[in-house]
Amino acid sequence: MAELSTDERNAIIAVAQRLADAARKETLAHFRGAGLQTENKSQHHFDPVTEADRAAETAMRHLLAELRPQDSILGEEFGFHEGESDLTWVLDPIDGTRGYMSGTPTWGVLIALCGPDGPLFGVIDQPYTAERFMGGFGLAEMHGPHGNRRLDTRETSTLERAVLFSTFPEVGTDVERSAFHTLASQVKLTRYGMDCYAYALLALGQIDLVVEAGLQPYDIQAPIAVIEAAGGIVTDWQGNPAHQGGRVLAAGNAQLHAAALDILSQVPAG
Amino acid sequence: MAELSTDERNAIIAVAQRLADAARKETLAHFRGAGLQTENKSQHHFDPVTEADRAAETAMRHLLAELRPQDSILGEEFGFHEGESDLTWVLDPIDGTRGYMSGTPTWGVLIALCGPDGPLFGVIDQPYTAERFMGGFGLAEMHGPHGNRRLDTRETSTLERAVLFSTFPEVGTDVERSAFHTLASQVKLTRYGMDCYAYALLALGQIDLVVEAGLQPYDIQAPIAVIEAAGGIVTDWQGNPAHQGGRVLAAGNAQLHAAALDILSQVPAG
Repeated sequence: MAELSTDERNAIIAVAQRLADAARKETLAHFRGAGLQTENKSQHHFDPVTEADRAAETAMRHLLAELRPQDSILGEEFGFHEGESDLTWVLDPIDGTRGYMSGTPTWGVLIALCGPDGPLFGVIDQPYTAERFMGGFGLAEMHGPHGNRRLDTRETSTLERAVLFSTFPEVGTDVERSAFHTLASQVKLTRYGMDCYAYALLALGQIDLVVEAGLQPYDIQAPIAVIEAAGGIVTDWQGNPAHQGGRVLAAGNAQLHAAALDILSQVPAG
Repeated sequence: MAELSTDERNAIIAVAQRLADAARKETLAHFRGAGLQTENKSQHHFDPVTEADRAAETAMRHLLAELRPQDSILGEEFGFHEGESDLTWVLDPIDGTRGYMSGTPTWGVLIALCGPDGPLFGVIDQPYTAERFMGGFGLAEMHGPHGNRRLDTRETSTLERAVLFSTFPEVGTDVERSAFHTLASQVKLTRYGMDCYAYALLALGQIDLVVEAGLQPYDIQAPIAVIEAAGGIVTDWQGNPAHQGGRVLAAGNAQLHAAALDILSQVPAG
C-alpha cells in the first residue's frame, strides 16, 4: 500500500472523530434506559444485541457512505461492505454489550482504520465517561472531561509486579483458561470486568497486561492501534499479529510481553 | 434514639455533601497519577494504602471536627473517634483501592451516618465520573454530569433473569466461594470488578444482586442506606442485618432476595 499523505491521514482522523461522535449519541440515548430490549443472537450463550448497537453502527455506516464511499466497512452488526480502496473501517458499535446492559462504564465504541497489513488508526470511545482514546498516524492521546493526556504505556518489566486484566475469569477453552490462570497466579493483581476499557487503561499506563481469547477482528483492531501508538505490544499467544482476533496478549512493553508469552505460548496454536 | 428533626436531617445531608466534595478533591488529585506510592498494609495479601486514602479521610475528619464535633467517627484508615451523640459517621475514603490503583472508575468514597440500629443516611460517590448516589431521610437520588435521577431498584424476581455482581470471583472462604458459585450458576449473568459501584448500579435499577464476603462495616453501611432508600434489601447470608460487615447479600426486591438467600443460607453462620 502506498504511504498515506498527511492530508489523507488528517482526513481519516477527522472522519473517525465524527464516527465516534455519532456512535456516542446513539449509545447514550439507550444507556441505562428503562425500556432497553435485548434479544439473544446466539442459541448457545447469552449474547444480547440491543437497539443501541444497531443504531450506532447504522449511524457510522451512513457517515462513511457520505464521507468515505471508497473504503470497505466491516462491522459487528451488519457485516462486510466492499469498497474500492485498500482501506477498511472496522466497527464495533458497542464492545462489552453485557457491561452496557448492566450500566457499567466499561463498554466502548471501537473504530479502526485497517490497511492490508493491519490497523493504522484506532479509537476507543467511552461515551458515558466522555473519554476518547486515539492512536495512530503519530497520535497517542486521551481526550476527556478531566483534560487531555498523552497515552504512554508503563515500564513494569516483571510479572510479579504486573497488573493483569481480562473481561471474564472464564477465559476461552479449557486449555486457554488453564494458561490464563497460570499467568494470573504469577502477577501481582488480576482484575476482571472492564471490557475494552482495559485496553484503554493499558495505553494510559495504568495497568500492564490484558489477556483474552475468542475475540473477533472488530474487538481488537482499535485497541491494537491505540496500544501500539502508546508504546505497547499486542500479539496473539504465539507472538504473531492479532488483528484477525482469536487469542490476544497486550502488554505495556517488550520485556513484560516476552515474560507473559513464555506462559501463554505453551498452548498449542488454535 | 429520638427521631431526628427535619432540620437535623437536612443538616446531616448537607454535611455529607461537604465530606464527599472534600474526599472527591483529594482522591482525584492522586488518581491515575504517575507518582502514586503504595505500601502493603497487610503481610498476608495485597492491600495497597495510598496517600489519597489518608488525605481524603483526614479532610473528612477535619470537616467533622468543625461541623459535627458531637458525633463519633469510624474510618478505615484512622479508626474510631468517640463523640458524645449516638450518631457515628462511618467513612471509607477509597472503597476499591485495587480499582483505584488500576485506574478504573469503579472505586468510591463511602460515607454513612449510623445510629444505634444501623445506617440512616449514605453516600456512594464516584469522583472520576462525578456521580453521587445518596439514600436516606426520604432521599434516593443520583446526581451526575448526565443529569439527576431517582434511585429505584428493579423488579427482576427470578434468579434465571437476574444479573449478579461481586468484586472478585475468589469470594471469601472455600465454603463461601462454593455457595457464591452455586448462586452464580443459576443467574443469567455474573460480572466482576465493580467495587462499590456495583451497589450503586443495584440502587439505580441496572443490576439485581450483589454478593460479597469478608466486608468491614465501613464497606457496607453507605451501600445499605442507599439501596434501602431505593427499595432494595441488604442482609447477611442468614437474612440478618449486615451493617457490621462480613457476608453481604444485596437484592433489588424481596422475592429475589429470598431466592438468593435460599442458596446462601446453606453456609453455616461464620
